[in-house]
Amino acid sequence: MAAKARALQATGKQVVSFSMGEPDFPTPASVVEAGVRALRDGKTKYVATPGILPLREAISEKLKRDNSVLADPENIVVSCGAKHSLFNALNVLVGEGDEVIVFAPYWPTYVEQVRLAGAHPVIVPCSRVSKFVPELDRVRASLTSRTKAVIVNSPNNPTGAVFDHKTLHGLANIACEADLWLICDEIYEKLVYGPSHLSLASIDPEVAERTVTVNGCSKAFAMTGWRIGYSASPRHVAEKISNFQDQVTSGVTSFAQYGAVAAMNLPADEVEAMRIEYMARRDLIVSLLSAIEGVDVAVPEGAFYVFPSFKGHEDDLNLAIKFLERSYVATVPGSDFGANGHIRFSYATSREEIEEGVSRVASFMAMVEK
Amino acid sequence: MAAKARALQATGKQVVSFSMGEPDFPTPASVVEAGVRALRDGKTKYVATPGILPLREAISEKLKRDNSVLADPENIVVSCGAKHSLFNALNVLVGEGDEVIVFAPYWPTYVEQVRLAGAHPVIVPCSRVSKFVPELDRVRASLTSRTKAVIVNSPNNPTGAVFDHKTLHGLANIACEADLWLICDEIYEKLVYGPSHLSLASIDPEVAERTVTVNGCSKAFAMTGWRIGYSASPRHVAEKISNFQDQVTSGVTSFAQYGAVAAMNLPADEVEAMRIEYMARRDLIVSLLSAIEGVDVAVPEGAFYVFPSFKGHEDDLNLAIKFLERSYVATVPGSDFGANGHIRFSYATSREEIEEGVSRVASFMAMVEK
Repeated sequence: MAAKARALQATGKQVVSFSMGEPDFPTPASVVEAGVRALRDGKTKYVATPGILPLREAISEKLKRDNSVLADPENIVVSCGAKHSLFNALNVLVGEGDEVIVFAPYWPTYVEQVRLAGAHPVIVPCSRVSKFVPELDRVRASLTSRTKAVIVNSPNNPTGAVFDHKTLHGLANIACEADLWLICDEIYEKLVYGPSHLSLASIDPEVAERTVTVNGCSKAFAMTGWRIGYSASPRHVAEKISNFQDQVTSGVTSFAQYGAVAAMNLPADEVEAMRIEYMARRDLIVSLLSAIEGVDVAVPEGAFYVFPSFKGHEDDLNLAIKFLERSYVATVPGSDFGANGHIRFSYATSREEIEEGVSRVASFMAMVEK
Repeated sequence: MAAKARALQATGKQVVSFSMGEPDFPTPASVVEAGVRALRDGKTKYVATPGILPLREAISEKLKRDNSVLADPENIVVSCGAKHSLFNALNVLVGEGDEVIVFAPYWPTYVEQVRLAGAHPVIVPCSRVSKFVPELDRVRASLTSRTKAVIVNSPNNPTGAVFDHKTLHGLANIACEADLWLICDEIYEKLVYGPSHLSLASIDPEVAERTVTVNGCSKAFAMTGWRIGYSASPRHVAEKISNFQDQVTSGVTSFAQYGAVAAMNLPADEVEAMRIEYMARRDLIVSLLSAIEGVDVAVPEGAFYVFPSFKGHEDDLNLAIKFLERSYVATVPGSDFGANGHIRFSYATSREEIEEGVSRVASFMAMVEK
């Protein structure tokens, strides 16, 4: 789909893209300059595998300040993006014969990484009726003696759902009862438009002892290309993660880590300004999509995605292809996320593009409905 | 050992370190400035998983120019260091039940990575008598129906051996006869002091079709902290490597890749100046070590390591600890590399440090011999 979009653009077509999970803001200037300083100061040599101490200290402070998560620098491992942190965590926590619960709709990498770790992904669907938030009864029903971990992603990609505190406490209880690891991907944590984000590791020490909190700089600070992610976990897990990473990639790009220190200490209003703009875009795209006959939109409360369904167009792959080929609008079909009949629109793009793109979708839908 | 060395330094002891596999030169200024430009030009977003096209083009040119290896940009995948390229290659080429030949003395990561890929490392020793170059009869004798690949590292870490062309052709023949993959770690390729480096993939197209050439910027261009490695392999393998990497880390730090483009196009004399300095240090450390009673030194022809044995001190771990605790000289014991009775000295350090450090070793040896 991405290749097709590029091919169309190459022929001069004005493609509107809702397909990228990437902020359209530039990396904040102070972060860029911190990277420049590190480069010119000769911070270009090997660094410790778990990350430079100033960054692990800054992450420790951030987790305490923003998330009420208590993690010393020794609990933190910096990696090449949150994706890499998830890969590390899965590889040290699960293996052959283990089952890992993944909620659908899901980011496809979860399923692939569980398999790469030798384990088996058990898909637990979250329905539109429950606003794409996990139902605890379904979670309990999916447990077996081989269940080893649950991957929790809130705010969620692709649905934009923010799991409510009652559900998160319920998941924590299940994990404690059934002796499960909680692997929490909190990469969209800063982009929440109403409810508040809750880190599972902040609930209590017993939960924290079975939780790996994964986050990174990409989404909150518009730093996708920097490849800085991290995990915070119990000390014995952090040591295993560091040893594993040492054999795979070793330490992360040295000077990029100095930029990440600056990002961790950005004034809150810089991040807040991006959040407010995303919220305005969220309101815009939800109102425009909702106005289209047959489109059902759950209002997303976080991240920068909206995940509508299109009545009478249950073949989402075919629909996404038509959007692209006939209207030059790039989206991602829901089946990529284990959720047929939906389409993911990323609104990490300008309001003008949102208006133009959704207007094209509306025209296309009006035409096919006739 | 590294922790102990740091602890001694923290107490004010003047530790001479021969333990780091890292150039002591700074990254060339033009490379640093290319990184700075990319950062300020907003090259801070996601890049394609196999690497930015300008870098893959520059690597393609480099492989042709320096190594007579023909690889299009589509054959190349950029990764977070050569270590990461090796991990990728092993994971797509070998699996459960497969055997991979690793020559000892070996870089310990080979053994760990083969195991992480689910395969079994078969250690084939290279002796001091054959100058730490593999003996083809031993290779043939180690083959089984499960042998799937051979890891070739020349110039070698830890021995500094440069495999002669006859041996390399012999390994290529064995690979063709027994249908094996050749995974060639050529990271020290630019640091050769006499014989010429031969890339296995340059031998002929049949060999190239079963070869993954791994290299990176760390050692030749003093860019260890940049984390830029790459592999060149047959198209179908490169696609698998890219897909695998996409699930583990995705693309590599965007702006660091622009620095790597500058490195690939550095004037040859900048790299040559570093090589000449390393060669002078090699001559110095070999002559100083050889003058010590009971020390046997094979003259290394590449990389920046020398790997002597110490007669009457077959417990190399104990000897390395004594060097550190009594003489404040940090080295790496040979048993870390699967070669008991040896000690690895890295001479990627100043001539002054080499003179001071080896003089301390000589005093220590004279004392214990009494």
